[in-house]
Amino acid sequence: MSNINNDLALFNELVEVLITEEEKNPVAERIDSNKLYESVDLSLNDAAMIDDEFKNLLRDVIVSTPKTATNLFFNQLFGGRQSKAVLGDLLAVILNNSMYTYKVAGPQVGIEQEIIRQSCDLIGYGSKSNGTFPTGGSMSNYMALVMGRDTKDPSCRLNGMTKPMVIYTSKESHYSNSKNASFAGIGRNNIRYIEADSKGRLIPEKLEEQILEDLQNDKIPTYVNATAGTTVLGAFDPIDKIADITEKYKIWLHVDGAYCGSVIFSDNYNHLVKGVERSNSFSYNAHKMLGTPLTCSIILVNDKKYLHDSFSNDADYLYQTDGDDFNLGKTSFQCGRRNDALKFWTLWKSIGTKGLKKIVEQQFDLANVALDYIRSNPNYTLYSFDDSISICFNYKNIEPMALCTALYEHQITVVGFGSFKEDTFIRLVTINANNEKQDILNFFKVLEDFVDKTPSLKRI
Amino acid sequence: MSNINNDLALFNELVEVLITEEEKNPVAERIDSNKLYESVDLSLNDAAMIDDEFKNLLRDVIVSTPKTATNLFFNQLFGGRQSKAVLGDLLAVILNNSMYTYKVAGPQVGIEQEIIRQSCDLIGYGSKSNGTFPTGGSMSNYMALVMGRDTKDPSCRLNGMTKPMVIYTSKESHYSNSKNASFAGIGRNNIRYIEADSKGRLIPEKLEEQILEDLQNDKIPTYVNATAGTTVLGAFDPIDKIADITEKYKIWLHVDGAYCGSVIFSDNYNHLVKGVERSNSFSYNAHKMLGTPLTCSIILVNDKKYLHDSFSNDADYLYQTDGDDFNLGKTSFQCGRRNDALKFWTLWKSIGTKGLKKIVEQQFDLANVALDYIRSNPNYTLYSFDDSISICFNYKNIEPMALCTALYEHQITVVGFGSFKEDTFIRLVTINANNEKQDILNFFKVLEDFVDKTPSLKRI
Repeated sequence: MSNINNDLALFNELVEVLITEEEKNPVAERIDSNKLYESVDLSLNDAAMIDDEFKNLLRDVIVSTPKTATNLFFNQLFGGRQSKAVLGDLLAVILNNSMYTYKVAGPQVGIEQEIIRQSCDLIGYGSKSNGTFPTGGSMSNYMALVMGRDTKDPSCRLNGMTKPMVIYTSKESHYSNSKNASFAGIGRNNIRYIEADSKGRLIPEKLEEQILEDLQNDKIPTYVNATAGTTVLGAFDPIDKIADITEKYKIWLHVDGAYCGSVIFSDNYNHLVKGVERSNSFSYNAHKMLGTPLTCSIILVNDKKYLHDSFSNDADYLYQTDGDDFNLGKTSFQCGRRNDALKFWTLWKSIGTKGLKKIVEQQFDLANVALDYIRSNPNYTLYSFDDSISICFNYKNIEPMALCTALYEHQITVVGFGSFKEDTFIRLVTINANNEKQDILNFFKVLEDFVDKTPSLKRI
Repeated sequence: MSNINNDLALFNELVEVLITEEEKNPVAERIDSNKLYESVDLSLNDAAMIDDEFKNLLRDVIVSTPKTATNLFFNQLFGGRQSKAVLGDLLAVILNNSMYTYKVAGPQVGIEQEIIRQSCDLIGYGSKSNGTFPTGGSMSNYMALVMGRDTKDPSCRLNGMTKPMVIYTSKESHYSNSKNASFAGIGRNNIRYIEADSKGRLIPEKLEEQILEDLQNDKIPTYVNATAGTTVLGAFDPIDKIADITEKYKIWLHVDGAYCGSVIFSDNYNHLVKGVERSNSFSYNAHKMLGTPLTCSIILVNDKKYLHDSFSNDADYLYQTDGDDFNLGKTSFQCGRRNDALKFWTLWKSIGTKGLKKIVEQQFDLANVALDYIRSNPNYTLYSFDDSISICFNYKNIEPMALCTALYEHQITVVGFGSFKEDTFIRLVTINANNEKQDILNFFKVLEDFVDKTPSLKRI
């Protein structure tokens, strides 16, 4: 068993390799998936590997791993690297606390709770509110769904699903809604996908129509998922109007802000989630807009009773000291739980709420740079809208799937495509707040250069 | 936005603080939970914090955070620190890939798959087997339950729970079984808790009796959870005999090896999970016996079809290149997913399967040291059994809850208590493979010294 100091030294050496590599090759050289195992020795064997070989191998792995922190990575709803958050996550690895009890997590419990308390205050939840750190946005939505289900039929926890529940979400919402309905015993057929308007926002009138129809058919409307930042267009569902309906029919309202819920940190953009204080639960991912390492998801509930009712379990061998408010395992899906809070806390503490606001606003500023560029250039067709950090476009009618794949395979830039209604397009996500205006313009430049040099690209 | 190099330097400085502190104060000074917020400034504010203050604050937080890697931490089913695994997890933080697609994770996909393939081989699963990395042992059990449920009634995914399913687990199994039944729409009342024998192992005859009774009552036996390492006693359910039953009645058999499933790495101890190749799914936590940072959980299924059937979802905006075998999001609960595989791979690759075997066997060796000590010392009463790394005992009839709390509050050592049938006792977990014989003997010494100096301790 080797020494921690040696391995920390090796870590530092490898980070230097990575940072140099990120500058030299912002898009990592791609290994064809079919040739992966012959290209890098990933094999696990009976014998130990000698140190120098191991170091070289790690170097190879690092060099060929896709770079998500560079100024040419636009493929996902995360990107870049907030170094103060990296610091916190590195410390979490070394400290290695599990978040279920105060006895084992100590002040880390307070760190998690402070983030939750401040977040609840920001969105206007009252004194009964609380929350937890699920393992991602899908899990946040799942926990909300379970709470919605259990609130509508508390006997479900003991007796299982016995009632014809139906749930609602927009056609543009995240696919976890579909999976979650299956996991929770509700069933995918009992999701009502509500139509979105021309800008990708759930149409409240359609929601109410559907609820009325379901009530007439003796179904039980149980849960509505509204989205703050849809996956493709980055659209915001009209929470206030949806809340009018969920309050009227007594349905759990969850706001899935995994992608763009962090607008709560900016008083210039928090109008996009106006009405969120009327929801029952709200989730956001700090590993998306706020740039922490993966994963850092937060779910807030307007009354912590619901979190406790659905997720608590007594366990004498575990909860042995301190009260429920400090033994966070009573309100989490998991038992053992990684410390995902520290990275967000080191970021927030060091740059302040003001700093988080700047991070959020930078992304909209970059989006506006992209929008302006596209609008002023007739070779582009724009498919997205204002107040979104997803910039959707096509260039010279090049088939977007083919273009994205070619850009990736030729190490030009990493970007994905998406669809809305009849259209398919490239989706540029301006979520990396480390980027400057110049990086966005450079993205268009490398794309255009590549297209001009590649006449074989298919047109739509 | 500060510089990554500065923050890496700060990280290195703080790790030094931590390591020094671990030697000086292996048990961190405890802050009373009620005084936490006045003792450390955890508050998040609008303004940024100045760098020096921030550094000092982090130092305070680190010093007062419970130390889980020291030779006086025995409180949980994890402890210690395998430095090669720490290296991998630190790299995962910096690389920050999400594991859903090959496009974004590249060779990290192969790293995860290699661990899964080798693990499947070790337990004797066939060529159709596969697996994934859930976010913990509870989630592993949950994924298994969902697969068992969906296999018994495939229409459940679409229509929800419509059949009277019942599931089975021993009274000594992990509490996640109870929570999971609720989450999956089965309901806690539909769990049958099967009696354990005098050594804490599920009694197969009782299982079959219960199944027959349920069949007679038109219930549908759906899922059996067997445990490899029960939470309190560390007992191993008799998998072969249970598999005879689950095969006969066509019931999904899951083996929850969260705690001690890693015995598969030792040919001296893998007899404890004899028959595991007959299970439908098996899970183990490398962050427990193998000492990786939290969390590193693996679930294996004997046929990957089940994983795909219950957890896949198409998403055009996400799965854009490479095949399903490389786009791991098709078989995970989550969408975005942290890289929990790299830490295990760096450990395994560097020390070999042989090294993992040594880690596992060291824990049983330490357990034997503890057992010998207790058996040869009449002041102790022993409550646990051979072939377990949970050593359960009482000393001089001191009330174990009071003693554990006092040891913790006086910074002597961190250890917990547990119960089995009528008895309550201290549970010493010899899971930290960094420990030597001397560390175990020292544990008893500090405990005895403390008891001798503290006559006020309550007796049973």
